[in-house]
Order: sequence, then C-alpha cells, then structure tokens
Amino acid sequence: MNINAPVPVGVLGASGYVGKELLRLLAGHPRASVAFGTAETAAGEREQGVELLRIADAPIASAEVVFSALPHGVSAQYVQEARALGKRTVDLSADFRLSPEAVYGLTEVTRSRVATAELVANPGCYPTAALLALLPLGRAGLIDPSREVVIDAASGVTGAGRSLKRELLFGEVAEDFRAYSVGNEHRHLPELKATLAREGGFTGDLVFTPHLLPVRRGILETIHVPLTRGLDRAAAEAIYESAYADEPCVAVLRGAWPSLKDVVYRNRVALGVAAVANVQRPRLTVIAAIDNLVKGAAGQAIQNMNVMLGLEETAGLPC
Amino acid sequence: MNINAPVPVGVLGASGYVGKELLRLLAGHPRASVAFGTAETAAGEREQGVELLRIADAPIASAEVVFSALPHGVSAQYVQEARALGKRTVDLSADFRLSPEAVYGLTEVTRSRVATAELVANPGCYPTAALLALLPLGRAGLIDPSREVVIDAASGVTGAGRSLKRELLFGEVAEDFRAYSVGNEHRHLPELKATLAREGGFTGDLVFTPHLLPVRRGILETIHVPLTRGLDRAAAEAIYESAYADEPCVAVLRGAWPSLKDVVYRNRVALGVAAVANVQRPRLTVIAAIDNLVKGAAGQAIQNMNVMLGLEETAGLPC
Amino acid sequence: MNINAPVPVGVLGASGYVGKELLRLLAGHPRASVAFGTAETAAGEREQGVELLRIADAPIASAEVVFSALPHGVSAQYVQEARALGKRTVDLSADFRLSPEAVYGLTEVTRSRVATAELVANPGCYPTAALLALLPLGRAGLIDPSREVVIDAASGVTGAGRSLKRELLFGEVAEDFRAYSVGNEHRHLPELKATLAREGGFTGDLVFTPHLLPVRRGILETIHVPLTRGLDRAAAEAIYESAYADEPCVAVLRGAWPSLKDVVYRNRVALGVAAVANVQRPRLTVIAAIDNLVKGAAGQAIQNMNVMLGLEETAGLPC
Amino acid sequence: MNINAPVPVGVLGASGYVGKELLRLLAGHPRASVAFGTAETAAGEREQGVELLRIADAPIASAEVVFSALPHGVSAQYVQEARALGKRTVDLSADFRLSPEAVYGLTEVTRSRVATAELVANPGCYPTAALLALLPLGRAGLIDPSREVVIDAASGVTGAGRSLKRELLFGEVAEDFRAYSVGNEHRHLPELKATLAREGGFTGDLVFTPHLLPVRRGILETIHVPLTRGLDRAAAEAIYESAYADEPCVAVLRGAWPSLKDVVYRNRVALGVAAVANVQRPRLTVIAAIDNLVKGAAGQAIQNMNVMLGLEETAGLPC
Repeated sequence: MNINAPVPVGVLGASGYVGKELLRLLAGHPRASVAFGTAETAAGEREQGVELLRIADAPIASAEVVFSALPHGVSAQYVQEARALGKRTVDLSADFRLSPEAVYGLTEVTRSRVATAELVANPGCYPTAALLALLPLGRAGLIDPSREVVIDAASGVTGAGRSLKRELLFGEVAEDFRAYSVGNEHRHLPELKATLAREGGFTGDLVFTPHLLPVRRGILETIHVPLTRGLDRAAAEAIYESAYADEPCVAVLRGAWPSLKDVVYRNRVALGVAAVANVQRPRLTVIAAIDNLVKGAAGQAIQNMNVMLGLEETAGLPC
Repeated sequence: MNINAPVPVGVLGASGYVGKELLRLLAGHPRASVAFGTAETAAGEREQGVELLRIADAPIASAEVVFSALPHGVSAQYVQEARALGKRTVDLSADFRLSPEAVYGLTEVTRSRVATAELVANPGCYPTAALLALLPLGRAGLIDPSREVVIDAASGVTGAGRSLKRELLFGEVAEDFRAYSVGNEHRHLPELKATLAREGGFTGDLVFTPHLLPVRRGILETIHVPLTRGLDRAAAEAIYESAYADEPCVAVLRGAWPSLKDVVYRNRVALGVAAVANVQRPRLTVIAAIDNLVKGAAGQAIQNMNVMLGLEETAGLPC
Repeated sequence: MNINAPVPVGVLGASGYVGKELLRLLAGHPRASVAFGTAETAAGEREQGVELLRIADAPIASAEVVFSALPHGVSAQYVQEARALGKRTVDLSADFRLSPEAVYGLTEVTRSRVATAELVANPGCYPTAALLALLPLGRAGLIDPSREVVIDAASGVTGAGRSLKRELLFGEVAEDFRAYSVGNEHRHLPELKATLAREGGFTGDLVFTPHLLPVRRGILETIHVPLTRGLDRAAAEAIYESAYADEPCVAVLRGAWPSLKDVVYRNRVALGVAAVANVQRPRLTVIAAIDNLVKGAAGQAIQNMNVMLGLEETAGLPC
Repeated sequence: MNINAPVPVGVLGASGYVGKELLRLLAGHPRASVAFGTAETAAGEREQGVELLRIADAPIASAEVVFSALPHGVSAQYVQEARALGKRTVDLSADFRLSPEAVYGLTEVTRSRVATAELVANPGCYPTAALLALLPLGRAGLIDPSREVVIDAASGVTGAGRSLKRELLFGEVAEDFRAYSVGNEHRHLPELKATLAREGGFTGDLVFTPHLLPVRRGILETIHVPLTRGLDRAAAEAIYESAYADEPCVAVLRGAWPSLKDVVYRNRVALGVAAVANVQRPRLTVIAAIDNLVKGAAGQAIQNMNVMLGLEETAGLPC
C-alpha cells in the first residue's frame, strides 16, 4: 500500500446535518478521500462535489472506512452489512452506544481501544461534553455520590436534525428558548450514566435537562457537581489541566468560562470551572462547550478514524 | 377627586429598556397618564409621545405615583426626594429590595402590604420567576433542606440593560450562549435567598447560575428541587393550581413546560413541572418563564401601582 | 341595536400566522368580540381563549363580520358562502384582490369605498408598503415613466406562512439572507401594478424583488423612483406629510429612515426619503416599513372593519 | 531561500473582526507563518496562539509581507513605514484604494498587476461583490448607460466593525433590518464607480444603498442592470461562465440564486441571474454573495498575497 495515497471512505446518510458536516470536514482532510456518500430523497444532489447515491447503489466495497450517519434504528442494519464486507466502521447513530460489540469512541478516554476497533460507536453530543467534564472528577473520587449531579444542557437546532417539524421552523425557534424531555426522559441519559459508571466510577443520582437554543450550532452544559471535599478554582483547574495535559482537542480555560463562540466549527471541548460560594457543603460548577456537529458528531468520528488508521489524530480537524 | 380622571404618574429613567417599557405600557393604561419621563443623555428625545426631561427639570410634584427605573445606586436618592414630596413610589432598581423601609412588591405574595405601601421595591427579574416557582413548595414544607436547590436561568439581552459593552454587541451575542457570575456570584442571590427564607421558610443551600441568551426578551429558569416526599406530576401541578387559583398573571401549564414564546410581551409567569425519573430520592423540576421587561420589571411595577391605587390589578397589562 | 354591545366577528383560518394575529388583535378590541375561529388540523386547540372549530361546524350566522385568512384558492368559496348568508366580509387571501366584485382595502386610499363595501379584499403585505410609498408621487405626476421603478423588498419569515417547508427551518434561515422570485416572478406583482395604475396613474416599468430575512416579523422596502423633476429631501418629505397629514397609521419620518423596529406590532407604515446624490437625472429613494402581520394583514383588516362599521378607525389597533 | 520554509507575515491591527479573520485563516495556511500581530487596547491578549503586541513594539523587519487591517486614516502611515523597510504590503483599509501608488487587488481582474505589486490596496467588501457581478457585463458592452444601475446591498454586522456603538448592540440589531447611507452617501461609492469605469468602461448613473442585516457575516447584493440588448437567463449565465471559467473563487450558479449560506467562511463570490419579465426594455437582475470577512476582506488579502508570492492562489483558503 502506498502510505501516502488517500484512504477512501464512505458516508452513509450524507444529506442530514451530521452527514453534510462529515463531507465538509472530509473535503479538507489531507489523508482521506470520499469514495461515496448516500442519501435517499436527496439522491442525485451534490454535496461538497460528491454526487449522492441511493444506499442500494453505493459501492461499499470501494471504501476502507465506512461512516454511518443514518437515523437511529436504521443504522444498525447497514453497519452490519459494511462489517460483513470487512469494512472498519464508525457509527454516529445511537444504535451501538450501549452494545458490547462496539468500542465507545470518546477518543480522549478510550483511545487505545479505538485504535484497534472494527466498530466504533461515536458518542452522543450531550454525553460527549458531560463525560469530558465529569470523568476527571469521577476518576479522582471527587464526586459525592450522596448528592445529585445536575446537568442543564442547551443545544443549537442542528442537534435536532434536519427533519420537518413545526417546532423547528424559524418562526417558532427564533427569539424562543425552551426545555424538553424534562424529568430525565432524554434518550441520551442511559448512555451517559452507563459511561459515567464504567469509566468514572460514578453511580449516584444524576438529573439531565436539555434545552433548545435559537442558534444553529453548539452545546453548552452547566454541570453542578457535589464534591467530597472542598476545591478552590485553581485546584479544580489544575485537576483538568493534569487530566488533559496532552490533549489537542480539550481546552481548559483559566479564570474564564467557555461560550459557544469558543468552540463552533472546531473539534474541541472547552471547559471552565467555578467553586460555588455561599453554600454549606463543597460544590463545583463546570461549564462545558462543544460544537454539536463537530466534537459532538462528525469531528469526533473523524478523530476516531484518524486513531484507527494511525494518522495524526487531528488530521483534517480544526481543534 | 374625580374617580375617572387618569392618575398622573412620572417615570425617572425613561430611556433604558425598562423605562421605555414602562412608557410603552403606560401609554395603553386606561386609568393612568404620564406626567413626565426623565433621561439625561437622551433628554429632549421623545418616547411614546412623551418628551424626556432632565431629572433636574422634572415636575415631580405633578405626579401622584413615581416610578424609578434609574440605575442601582443612583435610584435611592431620587426615590427619597420623591417621597419627601409625599409621592408614593415604585422603585425598579435594587436599592430597596433588602431594605425594611420598603415593601417587597412580588404582587402575588405581598399584595396586601403593597396596597398600603408608600414605597414598593419592585423585585429583580430572576428572583420574580424563581420565587413564584419555589414559594408554593416551600410553604408546603416540600423542599428538602438537606439537599441543594439548583437554578439555571437564561435571560435575553435586554436584562443586561442598554449600556455600551462589547460583550453585548450583536456580533458577540448572536449565535452564542454563555454562563456568567458562575459560582453564586450574581447580585440577585441575596434578594432571592432572603425572600425565600422570609416568605417560604427555606434556608437550605441554593445554587444560582445565570446565562445570556441570544434573544431580546424573556427569562427561562430551570429549577431543580429536592423534595421531602415524592410527588407525581399531577400532584405537583395541583399544588401550583391551588396556590395560584385566583391569580390572573400566573399560568400553570398542565402536561407541558413553558417557553419564552408563552410569556413575552405579557405580564405573566408561566410554570410547568416534571417529576424526575430514575433517581433514588424524590425530586421535582420546575420550569418558569417570564418576560424580563414585563412581569420581571415594568409590568409588575404597574401591577403594583394598580394595587396601590385600588384599580383593577391587571389594568393596562396583557396577562 | 345596542350601540355599545360588541360586534360579533368570525375568523376563518385562525391557526396560521395571520389568523392567530387576527385573534390576538381582536382580543384587545374594545368593540368587537370573537364569535368563532376555525382551523382544520388544529381544530380543538385554543387560541386567545377561543376554541377552534372545523369550518364545517362554524356558526357563520352568529357573526356580523367574517374575516377569511384561508389560503389563496381556498378562500373564495367560503367567502361566497358567508356573503350568501348576508355577512360583510374581509378577505385576507389574494382571491379577490384583482376582482371588481370587491373593494380593494388599502384603507388610506380607498376609505370611502371600504365604508360601504360588502366585500373587502385586504391588500397583500408587499403591495401595502409599496403603494403607500409610491401613490403620493404618482398622483403628483412625479414618477418618470420612461425609467424603471425598482423595489427591493425584504420580509420576515411569518410572511411565508406557517407551512412545513425545509427552507423555513431555523437551521436554514438563521444567519442567512436570500432573494426569491427574482425577475418579476412574484405573485404580488399584478396586484401592485394594477393598483399603481388605477390609483396613481403610473404605468411604466417596475422591477420587484423580494428577499427572505432572518427575522420573525416585518417588511422593509427600498424603493428607487426616477423623478420627472428634482426634489430635495425636505421637498419630498413635504409631499408625504401633505398626503398623509391626517392619517393615524402613517408615520413620515423627517431626516431619518425607518427600520423594522419602528413598526413591528404596530398598524403603521413608516416612510423616509433621500434624494439621490451623484446622478445625472433626478431620483428619489423611499424606504417603507410595515409589520407584515399587522398593517400588512390582520391589522389593516381590522382597520377596514372599523371603517365598515363606523367605529373609530384605530379601535383595537396600536398605530 | 528554502522554497518550502513558511513565509513570515505580519498583521497590523489584529484585534478587529478583519484582523482576527486574517489570523484565523493564516493559522491554517500551509506556506505562511505569523511573525507578529498588533493591537493597542488588546495588546497582551492572544489570538490564534499569537500574542498581540503594540504596534510600536512589532518587529516589522521580521516579516516578508505585511497586512494592515488598521482603521481608515490610520493605516496609511504604518503602510508607508513598512514599505520604507522594503516590505511588500497588502492594505485592507480604504486608504490606497483610489491611489495610483497601489495596485487595486480585485484578484480575478487585476491578477497580473498584483503579482508584481509592492503595495496592494485590498478592495472594499461591497465593491468586491458588485464589481465581480458587473464587470463581465460592462466589458461586453451590455450595460445601457442611459438608464441607472441600481444596487441594493445587505451586510452582516461584522462589516460595521467591532466598535462600540449603540446601534450595533444585540438588543438593537436582532429582529431588525434597516438601510443606511441612503441616497448614494456610502464611502465605498467612489471606489466602486472608479473601478467600474476603469476596468469595465461603465460611466453611467449608479444608485447604491447598503442595509444592515441581523446576521454576523455575509453580504448579498441585488444588482439591477439595464441592458443594451435582451438576454435570456441561459445566455446571461453563459457570459458569466465564460468570464470566470478558470476562476476557483467564483461560483456561477445555474438556475439558482445564491444566499449567504453558500459563501460564509469561504473565499468565494457566488453569482446567479434572472432576466426580468414584464418590462418593456431589457433588464437583468444579478444576485451576488460573499463573506464580507473572507472574499470581502481577509480572504482576498491572502489570495493577493498568494499571487504576490507565486504560491498556489487558493493556498490556505476554502473556496
């Protein structure tokens, strides 16, 4: 194999927001080339110079790595077909995130397993931010399991996909803000809790409430953590800096909290902390921000692909 | 006195967002007329047909009720001058909110004291929503004081006033979202805690984190409450419906959560609840929404004035 | 008839943006009450306290005036049915705007005919602003017919209705701006040209290009007029002030140009002018702004109803 | 000289929107490295990993090419100082756009002169879009000089710079839209007219009206052109395709009109046309879109630098 020849990759489901973002990022990737992209109702249209084919017509065999950005429930079948053809696969749907068949691809945490994986389950957007914020505290035994972790998360509309729903019309979303799936009903919760237990040893109560923001991109999570012992701001920052010292896609802010502006169009999570004043028991508030389409989806999928192929981890990715 | 003659009222500080909103609402009030409005750099300009005068030139004596929408720290002096002239006064700044000299004007809660008050301290926008959400639970002894109440609040930019700050430029706020005063540093916290203790008997820990939304108007608060006993959704809704059965400016939603769209340009708080699933100890999440300029400021000030004057409480107010 | 009893009115098509705005404005009307509102897929829902009925179940006979905000092509049939029951009718669709059967209800221009009309065709939103800007110049013989009038108009998304189209999703509209129906293809053009000829005597070339703005409400039109003789700014302003001297719903700005902020939620057109410098032949640019849902639709319909019933013309309307 | 060593470049005025965009794009440039960036009030802050220095402290001599994104009126002096040190310079201010001392850097039109220039005056954002739309028609003698060219242009707020003005606050711009400098008063007009005459032979009347859009980035211009002879859409498209056949940064759309979404974050102009129906004399409407910060400023400056240095013209630029 010519080590400098670009790696051919395929994208199943290339007409939704995540699939389009995959094609956009892959177009600038120095070591990958798009072998095909699929769409159903948008078949025949072009995205980033790639003509979209119906999935039935896609030359799966021509790709070395296959990404699936198909809808939840639909993706699993096509992922299995690609694997049957011997393809290494990154699934961006929720279909394998709780399955032992796949490696959970939170790159900074599971990098070594991703490197050898045949099937990577790319994490959900909300869990990506929450886990990168909580795991360093969990691993250090700093989260008090007798009190609740409370996460309020807000996402831009591309997180809800490109489907035609009245509640996603501009006339409904603009100048509005609302919570949804209140009361721990969001489908990302089991993924978040299972990973927090497995990778961070935390099994206490957790309350997760998502909100819809009138912006196109970006997730901000405000994460309230009960601590087993008091930490001032500098000490908390030091824990994160130590945990992520060599990570190119994690930005730990000193004396500041991230906003969406710090992360959109980038494959990074930005983290900032504050010790909570005027309370009797020690608490930390952590603010985490990502671009839901990049580090929360397409970017992290490419980061995982880079690891799988032994490429530079940030190839093609603005971090 | 001719009982049908409009009541002359004055507005100190009529060129900021709150002052302009006062003039806008008063212009449609069936029983009040604007005797004067003041501004300093904008003196000479017209708002709602009223020519703005320098405060030094304002005919304070011509008004029966004086509203002050002057900045914090500046307001107190002018409020005292109006009182020295015998005027009943509603102060929309923070200057008297913790003072025993004033009646705290959370109308639904302190109505009878407002009716006879000479000086009303109009509540802050964030506390208004939080208190109307928490007091019914606190008064029923339902909030577990051994665990924290967590409030994540998001406000439109008019809540930050009309001052010239780089962080309030369109190019900075649009497509962005961020937390500020993280770690219980917001200046509304003492007001919130003091009132929650005095009116609701709750003295436990509380974490309050405000956020800046890319919208013009509206506040949404997601309020996480640890309960002393389990409540399902219907039972929680029943508590609010009972507490606010006769209140024209409180909307308790059944089986739904409010969004900004439900409240902007209205003098109302909208409330919705969810029992939290998948946790070991009972918890309730309450969503509260208000228009920061109306129920959170100018509208509630007029509601208080209506009570003070014995007028219909919602006169001039879309609830 | 009790002259103080409210006039019962009905609204056909009350679940779209225009129909909802009609109900919102009628809820605050001092002399009208809503007898019924209709919707099909949204039947059973409540808007402004009114339970929406299927049109087949609506008690048409109970209303004195019937508004139709039904879609173009659908409206005509139901308007005729209401007329067959003897109801005075205001049609907000395009179905009768070119029909001799109806009076064209541009209130400021056709007021006397509206007063006695049985059927009023409410003008389109784009023509309302353009006509109020152009007619004073046309009637004064000031528009040079040998050169083109060029109109670039931009509208908020509620002008496109509440239908489910991908191009109206928040993720598509936010941060975007685009022209549509370029090349004189917009369906409002015949209405605009016919009225400009009939009421203003202008029959020259006209180029009309609409654009979609990332805002909820409002239309701004930039109207380029070739003049038969030179006019400086003050002279042009004087022409408009004279034409609209007694009009409560027209604001002629002096030395300023209107923006959407001047007109949203109001039943007014705001006009501002500039003489064009550095050109060889005399030209005027006129900027006109309206709220597409108010003066461009529901508000003007109520203004017309007020005229038809002999009520104060601005009753229930913030001008 | 090592032909593969990156070229050191300096950025004067790196804290405004244009300067920041230069640093952002240069950070991804494969053949350039940032030797320094300057700022005054923001000196000491970091942008894209570059610590900003006061201009007095900047090591001008260390750069091979100097970009100036300093304000108009301030830039000229520092550009001359850099030239005195023998530096090739690209000035993004307006200071040299009408000066014979500089080459006007509209790359697609003046490429050969840019290649050898010592000083390039980077075009204004509005003229860039207008000129690329009009010059092919002008050079073909298709613009009728006896009738006016009318340009209505709309820009995102970053076009107005990052200065602190009340009219640029989010609370003022959001949900608003307005015209400014109406009547041919915009300072870009002389640049536009002079270049249109020099490069396109058009000296007729022109009306240019800019508008402020509630978006962060992007310019859309709707350009109305009187033609000397009739052109249908396909013929007009063919003229543009022929003129820009080998241009990587110009996209001529077939049967469609561009929107901001087609160009933001890209160094391209997108063009679409429509023949105007229902008029007596032939007319064409051209829609042109660019990102004001990229093709309208920083991107085109880098495109010019690439040409000056003999690099691939699109190096570091997403077109």
